Amino acid sequence: MTRKLHLNAFLMGVGHHEAAWRHPGAEPARLTDVRHYQELARIAERGKLDSVFLADGLALGSVRHNALGRLEPLTLLSALAAVTDHVGLIATVSTTYNEPFHVARKFASLDHISGGRAGWNIVTSAGAAEARNFGIERPEHARRYARAGEFLEVVRKLWDSWEDDAILGDRAGGLYADTDKIHPIDHEGEHFAVSGPLNTSRPPQGHPLLVQAGSSEDGKEFAARNADAVFTAQQTLREAQEFYADLKRRVAAHGRDPDELLVLPGISPIIGSTERAALRLEKELEDLIIPAYGLAQLSHMTGIELTADALDEQLPDVPVETEGAQSRRKLVVDLARREHLTVRQLLNRLAGGRGHRVVAGTPEQIADQLQEWFFSGAADGFNIMPPILPGGLADFVDHVVPELQARGLFRNEYEGRTLRENYGLPRPLSRYAAGAVAVAR
Amino acid sequence: MTRKLHLNAFLMGVGHHEAAWRHPGAEPARLTDVRHYQELARIAERGKLDSVFLADGLALGSVRHNALGRLEPLTLLSALAAVTDHVGLIATVSTTYNEPFHVARKFASLDHISGGRAGWNIVTSAGAAEARNFGIERPEHARRYARAGEFLEVVRKLWDSWEDDAILGDRAGGLYADTDKIHPIDHEGEHFAVSGPLNTSRPPQGHPLLVQAGSSEDGKEFAARNADAVFTAQQTLREAQEFYADLKRRVAAHGRDPDELLVLPGISPIIGSTERAALRLEKELEDLIIPAYGLAQLSHMTGIELTADALDEQLPDVPVETEGAQSRRKLVVDLARREHLTVRQLLNRLAGGRGHRVVAGTPEQIADQLQEWFFSGAADGFNIMPPILPGGLADFVDHVVPELQARGLFRNEYEGRTLRENYGLPRPLSRYAAGAVAVAR
Repeated sequence: MTRKLHLNAFLMGVGHHEAAWRHPGAEPARLTDVRHYQELARIAERGKLDSVFLADGLALGSVRHNALGRLEPLTLLSALAAVTDHVGLIATVSTTYNEPFHVARKFASLDHISGGRAGWNIVTSAGAAEARNFGIERPEHARRYARAGEFLEVVRKLWDSWEDDAILGDRAGGLYADTDKIHPIDHEGEHFAVSGPLNTSRPPQGHPLLVQAGSSEDGKEFAARNADAVFTAQQTLREAQEFYADLKRRVAAHGRDPDELLVLPGISPIIGSTERAALRLEKELEDLIIPAYGLAQLSHMTGIELTADALDEQLPDVPVETEGAQSRRKLVVDLARREHLTVRQLLNRLAGGRGHRVVAGTPEQIADQLQEWFFSGAADGFNIMPPILPGGLADFVDHVVPELQARGLFRNEYEGRTLRENYGLPRPLSRYAAGAVAVAR
Repeated sequence: MTRKLHLNAFLMGVGHHEAAWRHPGAEPARLTDVRHYQELARIAERGKLDSVFLADGLALGSVRHNALGRLEPLTLLSALAAVTDHVGLIATVSTTYNEPFHVARKFASLDHISGGRAGWNIVTSAGAAEARNFGIERPEHARRYARAGEFLEVVRKLWDSWEDDAILGDRAGGLYADTDKIHPIDHEGEHFAVSGPLNTSRPPQGHPLLVQAGSSEDGKEFAARNADAVFTAQQTLREAQEFYADLKRRVAAHGRDPDELLVLPGISPIIGSTERAALRLEKELEDLIIPAYGLAQLSHMTGIELTADALDEQLPDVPVETEGAQSRRKLVVDLARREHLTVRQLLNRLAGGRGHRVVAGTPEQIADQLQEWFFSGAADGFNIMPPILPGGLADFVDHVVPELQARGLFRNEYEGRTLRENYGLPRPLSRYAAGAVAVAR
């Protein structure tokens, strides 16, 4: 079988471009309208995309100049499950401000509701404002990752706590379940003590898909040990190749098959029927950028206070990294240095995808880019971040996807029923099943 | 305007009767099938019912002889919102094992997704097994209620943190929101420290509907201060009248209009086209009861270890109450004493609704019962607990509802757009809005 690429649609409000809400192609009033997101999920499914993804944070960002104040992803995904049949449904949930019992249960429920289409993007919540909404000091980086590792271990045990054949449904005999196949997990660790079993039966996928998106050392190790897919921001082919090779080596070092972790770099495609039309759209969006907003975002990302006076200067020197969490800061600073960008130029480059790669062009040109990365050891697929929603996603599905299909790079029909099946990944056994082999991960 | 009664459909797996899953009218395989619950929500909406309600607990019960292992309610309700337009959507969420920021956000999201139909049944989680899934000692009763009070205060502040007119959507001016109308809440209390504002905009209802179901002294005080509706188990008209009058007095004592809290006793209607048919169905269900299951439930409720040897004896003396949480225990013991029931007879009486009233009869007889309680100062409406689902709900909607409508007791069409509007309750103002009057509750 020819290797096919995998495509995830990253759904971000009315578009990934920070000025999307000001563009005539977007309707900011739809930000909290479930029909907007249902339309997006249906478009993704029309394009046979593997999945849609909703990111999340636990504090309000800078809302004066951007359309923020969105819906909680897991709550929203059930409403998308109700109007789709095939597309996977991935949501971000933090391990720092949650309890594993709740998270295991909600994803198990979403997996049942969607018939095996749930995925969890595991984050550890780096932001200080988030900690203040939970009355705690922000835990430092390593501590957050230690908690995340144990959190995930508990969640997996809970997903395994009902064996697949635990439910008997024997009406005549009055036996609903074989309680020998439903297991307390009796977890006692440094961060959690959880008895179990889960009070929702085993998810159709065994374990909902596990996604990770941190590029720090801890993040990459966590992904190599645990993740089924990785979302990543990569600006250049060479960096993407290095990231890809490094991550696959780490996966193998943990005794896993490197093909069982998919690397999906982000790309914001600005699509036009001609290159000129694509560049015009890019310029339209650029003209709507509010420098004060971009400056605040950039200050937040780099840790440097930047003012409007600095717009036409080079980015000042950035302090040495003090914590492993700041891989996005390194990407931004490298980009500015490499291309000798002024702050204003850098803002324009970041406005489209917050550090993710932005490519403007015709459907063929976009497909060329995806193909090159896919065949150069840089990607197993892509995290598609349309600048404007729904239009940018519809353009991708209606114009880029057929081009990828014509080249034999992308499916014409869904291969499987579940998200794992479409990603080409195995279904985990319950660790408690007779004959189950203990696995290190 | 004539006073109308309000009806909530309490959706419990494949039925409220503990043996429902063994009855040919139920399909236990649908327990985790979203289409089952979507069908139930549509039936409720066909009957113009005010709302549907999903209860919850955070530990697996006795699953050997009963169909347990259900879906998490909030995750499920979004999928019901997607296929309905009018019916309210109420879920239980515990204040003991959650964080107010998450709960405020999820209900705000469900309220947006459903167009103003979300409701929260606030519980404090009395079970010891639940505590063991969160690695903590079970907090004692008063402590749980103290936390619940502050929890709700934080949630309300977060729902108020965006004023109704905070969103400007001014594309030309580049102003998405008026940040003078989005407020940090800066809550610092005994249990919580939460900065806010919420990162989801103000819910369509202002505050999603607040429901409470505890009948202890603390529970009644909490309801009187905070709730919009109360679900309650009452076996006799006289007790129901006393409960109703007591609660309304308490509401008034808190400076609230007693009409702004609805009292909804539970009733499990066993419906037949003739009385004989209804009694036959009741007998069919009784014959499917597994005494071992009922004994375990009764032991749990009363705190007495009961064995099969005791089935044909009277209920032994029960120790004096040690904690305010056990109002259901009192109800059960009173029922056994009042009617001189053997343990086996008591099990049959409890199997239908875990202490809620069970009434078998024709649609007219059921309507008579509802009418009597409604006109006797015992109820503002009812929490309908069908013994078998979906059949028992369809029978209620297709046969009892038309009878209530013919008597002028129930609506023919939804009065409003939101759950609050259909319950006849006002929409709370944001406490931060200019001119908002500080309210004690």
